[in-house]
Amino acid sequence: MNGTIGLIIDMDGVLYRNRTPLEGARELLDFLKSSGIPYVLLTNNSTLTAADYKEKLLGMGMDVPEDRIVTSGMVAVNYMKNHLEEGPVFVIGGRGLVREVERLGWSIVSLKEARRKWREVRHVMVGLDPSLTYDKLKYAVLAIRNGATFIGTNPDTTYPAEDGLYPGAGSIIAAVKAATEVEPIVVGKPNEPAYEMVKGRLGADELWMVGDRLDTDVLFAKRFGMKTVMVLTGVSTLEDVKESEIKPDLVVPSVRELLEYFKVLEEGNGDE
Amino acid sequence: MNGTIGLIIDMDGVLYRNRTPLEGARELLDFLKSSGIPYVLLTNNSTLTAADYKEKLLGMGMDVPEDRIVTSGMVAVNYMKNHLEEGPVFVIGGRGLVREVERLGWSIVSLKEARRKWREVRHVMVGLDPSLTYDKLKYAVLAIRNGATFIGTNPDTTYPAEDGLYPGAGSIIAAVKAATEVEPIVVGKPNEPAYEMVKGRLGADELWMVGDRLDTDVLFAKRFGMKTVMVLTGVSTLEDVKESEIKPDLVVPSVRELLEYFKVLEEGNGDE
Repeated sequence: MNGTIGLIIDMDGVLYRNRTPLEGARELLDFLKSSGIPYVLLTNNSTLTAADYKEKLLGMGMDVPEDRIVTSGMVAVNYMKNHLEEGPVFVIGGRGLVREVERLGWSIVSLKEARRKWREVRHVMVGLDPSLTYDKLKYAVLAIRNGATFIGTNPDTTYPAEDGLYPGAGSIIAAVKAATEVEPIVVGKPNEPAYEMVKGRLGADELWMVGDRLDTDVLFAKRFGMKTVMVLTGVSTLEDVKESEIKPDLVVPSVRELLEYFKVLEEGNGDE
Repeated sequence: MNGTIGLIIDMDGVLYRNRTPLEGARELLDFLKSSGIPYVLLTNNSTLTAADYKEKLLGMGMDVPEDRIVTSGMVAVNYMKNHLEEGPVFVIGGRGLVREVERLGWSIVSLKEARRKWREVRHVMVGLDPSLTYDKLKYAVLAIRNGATFIGTNPDTTYPAEDGLYPGAGSIIAAVKAATEVEPIVVGKPNEPAYEMVKGRLGADELWMVGDRLDTDVLFAKRFGMKTVMVLTGVSTLEDVKESEIKPDLVVPSVRELLEYFKVLEEGNGDE
């Protein structure tokens, strides 16, 4: 390989599932490190921070520097910094999302303060919130109807958990959208703000997206002219690929085969 | 009048707003009582029971028998009794909705029990729930994805409160719909189950619907061949009527003018 390839790799369903590393995941990361191929791990999950993910990965034997990890919460905050005017923010989201917004340094209107201050809110950020309540929805809706920007972290309406599919950020966003009739700016995959953010970090001629979902990962790659490698260890199946209009460039059972593919490429280059 | 007219009257925005009776509301109800014109008060709100409404109305000087009050929770339960097979129910809703489902006598899976028992749930009922939490959404989604029926009380995505529009049942239903990809059976106005239920109670040749919302009350009337009287004391405005494809038969500033219209009709009949 000539080093001009950069990789964007989804985490859940690609490198691990629940808390179990998937076949070839550790080896792939080791290989990328030793070959100096630039990569970024990009997740639509906003409930954890990059530091949380670093720790989570380490717990599964994968040592990834924090600056190679990008969450949709980070994308959202990056988008706000670059495109929106500073102003008080109201957040529906997990701890990770709140942390990212805190890092931005703009004032945060807490749920407790919202009762008095919702009219001051300029931006409403909505992500997956395991502590969602009716009052959070209420103040988000009041603020957006009062003119606040409506930003969503990611469009996923569900996410896989141990006992089935749980409601995702996209489902909470749907409730706020229904009550406000306002179209949100959704920043995660497959949308542009996610691309804007990771592109700059990779500085490669050709980007490859490695993911498990047709509707986010593969669509994301197609939209921005990236090559797509789809693994079958996550949400989408080979059946889904057959029925979908969005086709990945390459479908592999797991990242283990992707690693083998890279190794063959590398040997090829070495022979030249 | 010849007694073959029956009235369906919406409450909030028609008879009162917040806790203040609207002009002519008391007098209209007195008139209907003394002239023996059959009527039903029909609300898409499911958080209160008919008994709660009776009390609420009484507090504003309006004495209405409980059996003339129909909530969307009652419509939902009536629908379940007539169209669905008995089975455990999981409810997202206010106290009023839970009461109605209890009255149905089918077993209710509480939020606490849902963790162990969500796989047993056969029907999920979703209405406005001021105590909504993420866990309630989660078990509703798991049960519906597991095959449970998805019933919604009413489609209103918002409802007017003192400081603005709050998220309504329709907005919570939108979240569950997004996460399940299942189309709910929504029973309240403007849908058939609401018509089925009140029609039987009125036994009149011609039904008139008196309401304040184009998207629920007026559309409801149009769908089922009722005459529509729209009042301007609630949500929809004269401007909305101009822009809408759904036109009421009669638009009056408030129920006071409707009462005057009835009185003129009655005098006319008396002269014959």
